[in-house]
Amino acid sequence: MRGMSLNDGLSRPVGITIGDVCGIGPEIIAKLFRDRQASGCVVIGDVGAMRRAAAIVGGALAVARIERVQDVQHVPPHCVPVLQPGALPAELAELPFGRVDARAGAGAAACIEHAVHLAQGREIAAIVTAPIHKEALAAAGVQYPGHTEMLQALAARGAVAPPVRMMLANEELRTVLVTIHVSLRDALDALDFDAVLSTVRIAHTSAARWGQPKPRIAVAGLNPHAGEGGLFGREEIDFIAPAIAAARAEGIDASGPFAPDTVFMRARHAANHPGEFDIVVAMLHDHGLIPVKYLGVEQGVNVTLGLPFVRTSPDHGTAFDIAGTGRADPASLAAAIRMARRLSA
Amino acid sequence: MRGMSLNDGLSRPVGITIGDVCGIGPEIIAKLFRDRQASGCVVIGDVGAMRRAAAIVGGALAVARIERVQDVQHVPPHCVPVLQPGALPAELAELPFGRVDARAGAGAAACIEHAVHLAQGREIAAIVTAPIHKEALAAAGVQYPGHTEMLQALAARGAVAPPVRMMLANEELRTVLVTIHVSLRDALDALDFDAVLSTVRIAHTSAARWGQPKPRIAVAGLNPHAGEGGLFGREEIDFIAPAIAAARAEGIDASGPFAPDTVFMRARHAANHPGEFDIVVAMLHDHGLIPVKYLGVEQGVNVTLGLPFVRTSPDHGTAFDIAGTGRADPASLAAAIRMARRLSA
Repeated sequence: MRGMSLNDGLSRPVGITIGDVCGIGPEIIAKLFRDRQASGCVVIGDVGAMRRAAAIVGGALAVARIERVQDVQHVPPHCVPVLQPGALPAELAELPFGRVDARAGAGAAACIEHAVHLAQGREIAAIVTAPIHKEALAAAGVQYPGHTEMLQALAARGAVAPPVRMMLANEELRTVLVTIHVSLRDALDALDFDAVLSTVRIAHTSAARWGQPKPRIAVAGLNPHAGEGGLFGREEIDFIAPAIAAARAEGIDASGPFAPDTVFMRARHAANHPGEFDIVVAMLHDHGLIPVKYLGVEQGVNVTLGLPFVRTSPDHGTAFDIAGTGRADPASLAAAIRMARRLSA
Repeated sequence: MRGMSLNDGLSRPVGITIGDVCGIGPEIIAKLFRDRQASGCVVIGDVGAMRRAAAIVGGALAVARIERVQDVQHVPPHCVPVLQPGALPAELAELPFGRVDARAGAGAAACIEHAVHLAQGREIAAIVTAPIHKEALAAAGVQYPGHTEMLQALAARGAVAPPVRMMLANEELRTVLVTIHVSLRDALDALDFDAVLSTVRIAHTSAARWGQPKPRIAVAGLNPHAGEGGLFGREEIDFIAPAIAAARAEGIDASGPFAPDTVFMRARHAANHPGEFDIVVAMLHDHGLIPVKYLGVEQGVNVTLGLPFVRTSPDHGTAFDIAGTGRADPASLAAAIRMARRLSA
């Protein structure tokens, strides 16, 4: 894509948080180190849990506890460098797979907190989060329902939490969502001028951080044919177009509203098909996610925009049903690591 | 795709209606005959307008007026067979390009009517409609706003018009839409048990006509994650799942509701990716159209389901801005012809 560096940014490691140790997180991390797809990364997690995962995935993979991020460079190949936060529960490596456990939730939260500390101190280039389990977090008394809210609060440093937005991205397409996990009726009620404008602003400023100072942002409409001049709905006229105009007045290269059914195709970057836009802002969860996932779900990476550091995650959960079997596919985590490197290069 | 015949069905010709002669219809039809992509087709239209189009696109293309459909087989290569309905306005070949003209509207309507007559009599295998202009139709006093309504009324033969649904299809994906050209708010109000069930039924019975007697029909949800068990909306629980159950009770292989963001990817038929489903029923225009168009708008063909004959159309309009220049791309019309052959084989 335009403005994207091909430099892998290996100067600072990417930090991978271990996630819920009763899920597939440790084993998919281990697979990537075994297959040399995670070089230059450091795991923020429990050494014992990573040793258990290394044994599951095989390949003579060793696990080394390191004390400082910069020690990553001294760790030999075929060895997983693990930074273990001091506050972890002691018995994480013995917890049964596939079960909700408060200790796993507490451990996951402590690792995320430590990773944010390292990212804020610029010791790691980005955070890639392996999956956590919402119920385990809750059982541990963690007050946040998921990664995004927790990262947002930790990044606030006591002040007001920054507004964040979810971006779904693959090699072809980057889409930033105005609304996400609400019903369509609630999404219609939540959409307004401020929601659209702040999403466009977050997309714009985030792109500058990944080396794209003036991204071409397409704003998709809400209604079929972007409302067909008001015949199929007035949201485009009433606030989407005005929000685009306001963004342009701030110097942002925003355009639209475009018909949702063709704007993603127009933005698609593929061989012999240079995309017309760098980012598409979508009003609805599925307007944005359908095209990103269409060519294969493992290619879609979740990126949190609006944080003071790069954070990506794979697009799946803890998969308790297969945790511990070694069968879990690490492709989405690999894509999340690649995306984290690109965005922080 | 499963159950799709590779037989081109050349026994009966495919009828192509000329559309609005002031638009790009005649010239894209002429291009396909010139390039041997319309063999076995007959144009239902004005001979003079087709001669003008043949001159525009070049390639020593001749135009022959035929009196009966079966005469198509006697027309030599590099010659466009045209069946001209008796009731056409006389001056169609002299109308200026790119302008709304009541005579062009009246001519387009007469050709559609004649094509329906031929399809009902099983003289042609399918109807492919070149674009018409809604304003020209209205200027001619035609009471229907577009093709679909007109075909529906003509197919009714005086009785109640059959319910029809729009299918968008390409080589990889077939999606049938419950709601189309209304605002999202109106779509939410229009969706109910009957709308979903009748769409599933139409998809099922249409597939039998194209040689797929028990298609695997996936029903996409409305809300993100198909409502996540009621957390993000209740439509899936209240009527989408019950409509699927009712369809299954009728012997239809319907399943879902599935999360909209992954069901299209799962249904996609591509090399090394056999789709899990044959048809996806989508609640919203853009849920269905975004994935069909994502890989290239020229690949999406509009198919009207519920009529007693196959009808397809390209996914663009009359393009008055370039009509008569010979620059119009015939790819979507070519795809519509290929799809008509497949569905009527």
